[in-house]
Amino acid sequence: MQTYEGKAIVLASRPTGKPAPDNFRVEDIAISHVPDGKVLIQNLWLSIEPYMMLSMKGSIPMSQRVHANRLNRLSDLYVSGVDIGQVMCGPTIARILVSKRDDFRAGDMVVAYGGWQDILIDDGSALLRIDPSAGHVTAQLGVLGIPGFTAYGAMREIAQPKAGETVVVSAAFGPVGSVAGQMARLAGARSVGIASGPDKCRRLVTDLGFDVALDRLVPDFAAQLAEACPNGIDVYFENVGGMIWWTVLPLLNERARIPLCGLVSRYASDGVDDGIDRSMEVIEAIQYKRLLIRGVSVFDYVPLEADFYREMAGWVERGDIRYVEDVAEGLASAPQALIDVLKGRNNGKMLVRLGRR
Amino acid sequence: MQTYEGKAIVLASRPTGKPAPDNFRVEDIAISHVPDGKVLIQNLWLSIEPYMMLSMKGSIPMSQRVHANRLNRLSDLYVSGVDIGQVMCGPTIARILVSKRDDFRAGDMVVAYGGWQDILIDDGSALLRIDPSAGHVTAQLGVLGIPGFTAYGAMREIAQPKAGETVVVSAAFGPVGSVAGQMARLAGARSVGIASGPDKCRRLVTDLGFDVALDRLVPDFAAQLAEACPNGIDVYFENVGGMIWWTVLPLLNERARIPLCGLVSRYASDGVDDGIDRSMEVIEAIQYKRLLIRGVSVFDYVPLEADFYREMAGWVERGDIRYVEDVAEGLASAPQALIDVLKGRNNGKMLVRLGRR
Repeated sequence: MQTYEGKAIVLASRPTGKPAPDNFRVEDIAISHVPDGKVLIQNLWLSIEPYMMLSMKGSIPMSQRVHANRLNRLSDLYVSGVDIGQVMCGPTIARILVSKRDDFRAGDMVVAYGGWQDILIDDGSALLRIDPSAGHVTAQLGVLGIPGFTAYGAMREIAQPKAGETVVVSAAFGPVGSVAGQMARLAGARSVGIASGPDKCRRLVTDLGFDVALDRLVPDFAAQLAEACPNGIDVYFENVGGMIWWTVLPLLNERARIPLCGLVSRYASDGVDDGIDRSMEVIEAIQYKRLLIRGVSVFDYVPLEADFYREMAGWVERGDIRYVEDVAEGLASAPQALIDVLKGRNNGKMLVRLGRR
Repeated sequence: MQTYEGKAIVLASRPTGKPAPDNFRVEDIAISHVPDGKVLIQNLWLSIEPYMMLSMKGSIPMSQRVHANRLNRLSDLYVSGVDIGQVMCGPTIARILVSKRDDFRAGDMVVAYGGWQDILIDDGSALLRIDPSAGHVTAQLGVLGIPGFTAYGAMREIAQPKAGETVVVSAAFGPVGSVAGQMARLAGARSVGIASGPDKCRRLVTDLGFDVALDRLVPDFAAQLAEACPNGIDVYFENVGGMIWWTVLPLLNERARIPLCGLVSRYASDGVDDGIDRSMEVIEAIQYKRLLIRGVSVFDYVPLEADFYREMAGWVERGDIRYVEDVAEGLASAPQALIDVLKGRNNGKMLVRLGRR
């Protein structure tokens, strides 16, 4: 067998605070043997996701579960931290180059958990075959993949928006938030998106059909949010935390639902905030307003998987749910892409396209 | 018509921090006329409840709702604050002395929202007739009243304990906590009660059938709680907040459920805690552990009312759910009874028996 060569980006050091380019290192890789029962795959697209910051810091504090199906195998991968010297983790779109398994053939396109590298040996347990003729394969990393399924599960299980309600979504231009806000609109609710900067706000309304979009970076953001929600907030789909959390809290209606999906503003922080301890303020609000807050993990929604693929594929096909992608070119751009995602600088689902061999 | 005379306890001043005896004042009352459509009632028992501290501070921050039924009329009363000079609020067991309504007769026993006074004119909209031959009428203020229904609704709608799970209840010897813990046991879960002092802890196990009881006042409470919950905590029924909240938080299992029913430790505080802001620690725990936290209000469980009366009456009848009452004698003892409840010094459901006329 020929020797396949490529590059990999490994974790050089753990970030202190925000990640920086020198936390990463490029290494050469070469593979000349595929063991029985394994496949050699070539990554074509990397998905850049905020949780990778947590992987860089060490393991994600979520227990691992052992189940037979692919989603639960994926959950084990998602919660594993990356060790120093190890290849950065993450979902990819890949092509099978060499197969020593009966269930995959060379040339098959798959969704993999392939990490930041050109090529790798994979045991096949977390691979999902995709049909490249069925449209944009990259949607499998976004609206039709883990981010879309996350939004779908949390909206169905926690948010349950009703017609006429007001649904506020933070990081609304991202792959999870954009699906959440559009699902709110499909349910007849009013969707208010929060994003960074005027360009994303404009596109939230024109491209993704949000009713209102608000720029979190303007000085009077809090006043604008209050004005945009004259009847209060019935659902807050939380992806960010921090300042946006505190701005939303007083506007929540009684019995509001809060899917707690992400806390991007926290991922690059040291987690210590001096000053007044506002924790009991949160707890009191939950009690007095009888709020429902629930942490979101896509891996809790396994029973909805068939519904998700059927329903979301239909919505995307009919244009009821649209998506926006932001593509960086070349493996070497992945670190900066992650840094940008953590700052909210990406314009839609962040992808890295790897050079074709 | 004769003139009926009695005493009332009014709010003399708003408490700063904890309530004190001089926040209350005794006044004479006399009633010699009952308008058409109203009833004159005599209170026999007062229910002393922690939320009254919030009423003393002003209105409770919960919106009022307008519905036809008695429970929702009650909810309006519950959320109203007490003005300076106004009679202290609260549920009572009462007897109709004079009726100018078709639906009540002199001699009828009722659950009323009669406040801290011997006699009053009532419009009848929030009265519930009770059958004094059916057992201890005071149970209508506890296990068969608002506290029992609160626990019942929150256990059914939020906690949903399963066989083999661990359910921790704070203020477990109180009327809400004791029902919650016993319902957990009926569901096959392990019930761990937290209370103040060795006497209540002993009785939690011997009288109320909790599996374990822990004294929150001992220095190694946190270690004892961890030891009592070797498989973590699946449900935390929160009545207290503060130190107990922080002790429970790290022991919560993934997908634990937290009915947030009360925050007694906060009711007498000024609400400002300096130091490290731990609010995002709470939020991160909700995300990582995918916790479910929901504020509890009995008035959200109106659809369960018939279920509650049927099921709870059966449980009490069969001894599956037991209750403990703590009786103070005479109207003048009500202020100290409330002060005791807020300090966790009561031994079971706190009642005040009024002198017979």
